[in-house]
Amino acid sequence: MKHGGNIYQFAEQIGCLPEQVLDFSANINPVQAVDLSCLQQVQLGPYAEPEYSLLKQAIRQRYQYPANADIEVFNGASAAIFALLRWLQPQEVVLYTPLYGEYAHIAGELGCKINHINRLSQLMADIPNHSAVIFVNPSTPDGQLYDMQELLAVWRAADCNVIVDESFLDFCAADSVAEHIASYHKLYIIKSLSKFYGCAGIRIGFIIAAAQTIKELKRVEPAWKLSSFDMMYMQQALANTGFIEQTRQQTAHLRELLQRALQASGLFEQIYPGQANFLLAKLANNGDGYYLQTLLASSRILIRVCDNFDGLDKRYLRFAVKDALAISQLADSLRALSLNIDGGLGLIEQVNSPYIHCDTLST
Amino acid sequence: MKHGGNIYQFAEQIGCLPEQVLDFSANINPVQAVDLSCLQQVQLGPYAEPEYSLLKQAIRQRYQYPANADIEVFNGASAAIFALLRWLQPQEVVLYTPLYGEYAHIAGELGCKINHINRLSQLMADIPNHSAVIFVNPSTPDGQLYDMQELLAVWRAADCNVIVDESFLDFCAADSVAEHIASYHKLYIIKSLSKFYGCAGIRIGFIIAAAQTIKELKRVEPAWKLSSFDMMYMQQALANTGFIEQTRQQTAHLRELLQRALQASGLFEQIYPGQANFLLAKLANNGDGYYLQTLLASSRILIRVCDNFDGLDKRYLRFAVKDALAISQLADSLRALSLNIDGGLGLIEQVNSPYIHCDTLST
Repeated sequence: MKHGGNIYQFAEQIGCLPEQVLDFSANINPVQAVDLSCLQQVQLGPYAEPEYSLLKQAIRQRYQYPANADIEVFNGASAAIFALLRWLQPQEVVLYTPLYGEYAHIAGELGCKINHINRLSQLMADIPNHSAVIFVNPSTPDGQLYDMQELLAVWRAADCNVIVDESFLDFCAADSVAEHIASYHKLYIIKSLSKFYGCAGIRIGFIIAAAQTIKELKRVEPAWKLSSFDMMYMQQALANTGFIEQTRQQTAHLRELLQRALQASGLFEQIYPGQANFLLAKLANNGDGYYLQTLLASSRILIRVCDNFDGLDKRYLRFAVKDALAISQLADSLRALSLNIDGGLGLIEQVNSPYIHCDTLST
Repeated sequence: MKHGGNIYQFAEQIGCLPEQVLDFSANINPVQAVDLSCLQQVQLGPYAEPEYSLLKQAIRQRYQYPANADIEVFNGASAAIFALLRWLQPQEVVLYTPLYGEYAHIAGELGCKINHINRLSQLMADIPNHSAVIFVNPSTPDGQLYDMQELLAVWRAADCNVIVDESFLDFCAADSVAEHIASYHKLYIIKSLSKFYGCAGIRIGFIIAAAQTIKELKRVEPAWKLSSFDMMYMQQALANTGFIEQTRQQTAHLRELLQRALQASGLFEQIYPGQANFLLAKLANNGDGYYLQTLLASSRILIRVCDNFDGLDKRYLRFAVKDALAISQLADSLRALSLNIDGGLGLIEQVNSPYIHCDTLST
């Protein structure tokens, strides 16, 4: 399995139910802000209020942006990216890699020329004037949180359209760059709500941009596009303000547990100091991530090999922060493996993983 | 209110709750195939299975199409129309009017040259070669069910891309034209599920087209786009096969009641013999539909004036088939009005309706 998220295919291949999979491959908060009881209030028959006012109000109360900006909601961040790139029609995009593959996929399908800048090796590289820049902060799969000031200055100097994906920013106590829309109207914030609120089954994401941009984006959006169930759920979840700090603390604590479990296994030569709800780790001794994926499958554990992130290869693995029990099971499985395969994963006979062929993408 | 569906704005204006509105403006089945209890089974955390296999399987069991065709699901029929027209990129479209305004809106936003053919006055008109034809069967707002054979022959002879919207076909015991994709790969079926299944809050629609077309459409679709709640609900609803005939019979019966109520009021000079879940009626004596809308608002009844359907004007009103109680209340209100305003709505002083400014569209 090249990408995270498809627990259904994995479950079928190893012969268990999807809900029995310990999914470390998709970086979704294992905790939700509210339960499903609110759904019973949904009036299913009528069309939703066409401006989605209650949802937007809940988003506005949760996320700040300057007076000259506005938001538009989409059925997921992927739909938002498509809409924004279709509207911008950039001839040239600059992707700061490693990066969630969906950006390259969408830019490619829309016919953009794609440039890569490896942010791990040359963050402050020159970029083409007037290009569209795409940057994720904190980034995936490494979880690094960037101070954006200097980068923004570079991009503005080159008159770029600047797309900053802050889908994981809620896990950090850091400020959004949305405030800079006040002085730079070519700045666009992409936001998924699935990660932090633990609900990938809900398709709601949004864009923050200059009000005029939002107005133009809305002209080419469907008359109705969001599920009334999803809206009701998300309104309630956004209103649970206690969930925010609680999730940050819990994630930091569990990330520490995960880090220790990876460290203790002795399988990795580097574990990146991520600030989001996942950790990137590099196998020691040129180990093969697909082989580790295969070995862990017998424990119903699904992990993500990062060779489809530009600039990384199959030695890199991403582990989502899950609950303490799941982390403990991962720790046990890794420990057992490390005892059995002393010398590193790269030095023993490798098997072909049956899980590597999957076109599914998740961030 | 120019268009149907926005019960929220209407409720606010007349000072009641949205659920207290008797909404005859949106042509949504008042009955649902299943209740909401199935939603509790939804696993909210993980991403949905990315091919939406269970939903597509439920659609395939419900709707037939030939072996060379396939389906793709969208977050509503409006999203499907956008996707299809973006992919086709037609220079010229032919809209058979009167027609749901969203088609003209989308074609206009995508820069297509728009031609109109009034199907009520000149159904078999010549059309430009290689254009994209859009036809709704049965049509709205009149509900006429067309025999499509001759029309298809004309369109094929002109090498058109043919888009047939069959969102209301489930209300009739008539065949889909989908079977003709076998011999004509430029035929595309658009289908909303909201109307028949009484769930406008759910955003699921689909396209049936040649398999190669579907493959190409999918390339420019977001990685995930459908709500897991919506999918679970719709899978259950589609599996309720008893609902189909039951709804057809009930709709036919209630449409008859609605027809009698409109007829008995004496306000209308013509009521069209619609085959779907709504009826189009034309006010007598050059009556003003907006005035009738205003008068009925005091009974919390919302109706749809059809002047934004090309070829119609404010004498035309569309009434959705609602339940027997709602129809009875409409009948009472219309009767009371007709006694008070003897001579027709056009002959008495007209007031400016406060409900006419709304950009919301529903089919």
